Amino acid sequence: MVQLQRIAIAPEQIQDEHLILTAEQQHYLGRVLRLKQGDRFIIIIEGQGQWWIVELIVNLPSVSPQAKLIETVSIQTELPVEIILIIALPKGDGFEEIVRCCTELGVTQFIPVISKRTLLKPSPQKVERWRRIATEAAEQSERQIIPKIYDPVSFPQGLLTLSTFKSNTQSSVQYIFESRGNYQPFMLELMSIIADKIPDKIMIATGPEGGWTEEEIQAAISMGFQPVSLGKRILRAVTAPIVAVSQMMGIIEHKQYF
Amino acid sequence: MVQLQRIAIAPEQIQDEHLILTAEQQHYLGRVLRLKQGDRFIIIIEGQGQWWIVELIVNLPSVSPQAKLIETVSIQTELPVEIILIIALPKGDGFEEIVRCCTELGVTQFIPVISKRTLLKPSPQKVERWRRIATEAAEQSERQIIPKIYDPVSFPQGLLTLSTFKSNTQSSVQYIFESRGNYQPFMLELMSIIADKIPDKIMIATGPEGGWTEEEIQAAISMGFQPVSLGKRILRAVTAPIVAVSQMMGIIEHKQYF
Repeated sequence: MVQLQRIAIAPEQIQDEHLILTAEQQHYLGRVLRLKQGDRFIIIIEGQGQWWIVELIVNLPSVSPQAKLIETVSIQTELPVEIILIIALPKGDGFEEIVRCCTELGVTQFIPVISKRTLLKPSPQKVERWRRIATEAAEQSERQIIPKIYDPVSFPQGLLTLSTFKSNTQSSVQYIFESRGNYQPFMLELMSIIADKIPDKIMIATGPEGGWTEEEIQAAISMGFQPVSLGKRILRAVTAPIVAVSQMMGIIEHKQYF
Repeated sequence: MVQLQRIAIAPEQIQDEHLILTAEQQHYLGRVLRLKQGDRFIIIIEGQGQWWIVELIVNLPSVSPQAKLIETVSIQTELPVEIILIIALPKGDGFEEIVRCCTELGVTQFIPVISKRTLLKPSPQKVERWRRIATEAAEQSERQIIPKIYDPVSFPQGLLTLSTFKSNTQSSVQYIFESRGNYQPFMLELMSIIADKIPDKIMIATGPEGGWTEEEIQAAISMGFQPVSLGKRILRAVTAPIVAVSQMMGIIEHKQYF
């Protein structure tokens, strides 16, 4: 594929097969990248699994619309499964690292939750920052989908949100991670599931520093989650989801190969 | 196992089954943890795969020796394989994140290298900092081994260092990661190797931002490395080694289970 520049676009910026750029995007394309009338670039439409090649139809900066949709790009970098993470917010900036790495790896939805042992109370500015990080990471890793980051909610509320993802027509599996519980390795469960068929949705829940409470694990189990472990060493709250998604990605791409 | 406090000890601190504490360790045990004569804690001896329970024999602070070795701890959190990473130093503090996560995951040696496209020139203070991070992460993740971090060298020099790890009596495999080369997935290679037998040593090399040069990949291939990829998305230099080690750890612990 030609190495065209890529930018992320909100769906409402598309009107009648034309594109309306924000002031910031106009500046970036015109002043930073120095694109001119007739030059092409790639847009990733947020929330849609598709790239488009577009062409500038006027010099920048100018009035809208400023670019025309030319054709979709036939590249497929997405995993054939939705990966939905419930993450109990870790302390400090840990969630930023999780969003950055897990977006690169192919996660489709993040549901940040406040669990019993979560110390962080995130501000609305934080949530905006996480969404910017997800958009940047999706662009850099050449994904077609920009993952959705939900507003933080309590853990019980997060479990309810998750239950809306389940459908009668799609298969799904759910795992909750706990290092101290002597549970079966995640890889063992995953490989036996995927040997049969890649499910449509994989939902996982990882805890904060100090882990989930027993009550939280029981609540998740009653919602259909299976408790699993990530090996014998104790992983940080930031490391655990990255490891879980890395293993999923490896197994799924391995399965796809055959 | 009883939840005793753990601290890391250099091998030379052990003399005749007794332990000589540094001033910093005396302060930590006596003033911070408030341990007293007769209290026990666990020591991890650097470079050795074993924990010891030790007992304070004098009040702190005092003259040496201040603790007596009681018994080894029968816990095994190490993977049954040496994992040796050659990492082309990423920009900024990226290597710190790699050391922290990969130590949690079970890596035994890190060889940081300066490749053609590496921008960072690390100071000796940086190297000391990486070693402190590895020690802390090994303690926190409850490992028996504190991984060794080599002084940074050029990539060709790093390949030579790596060749000293090979022996006639131990099996080893070597992989170099490159995202743009259309190589086979790492997982595919790893699963077919490990289905047979877990090798004694796995050595992997991951590149800097912008990847390895073609010349560097050829140099690695001529030393026995096999080029592989980590899936369809483009991973950051910091993310790639964490993903590779996560997948290895998953496959190895899965294999051990049977």
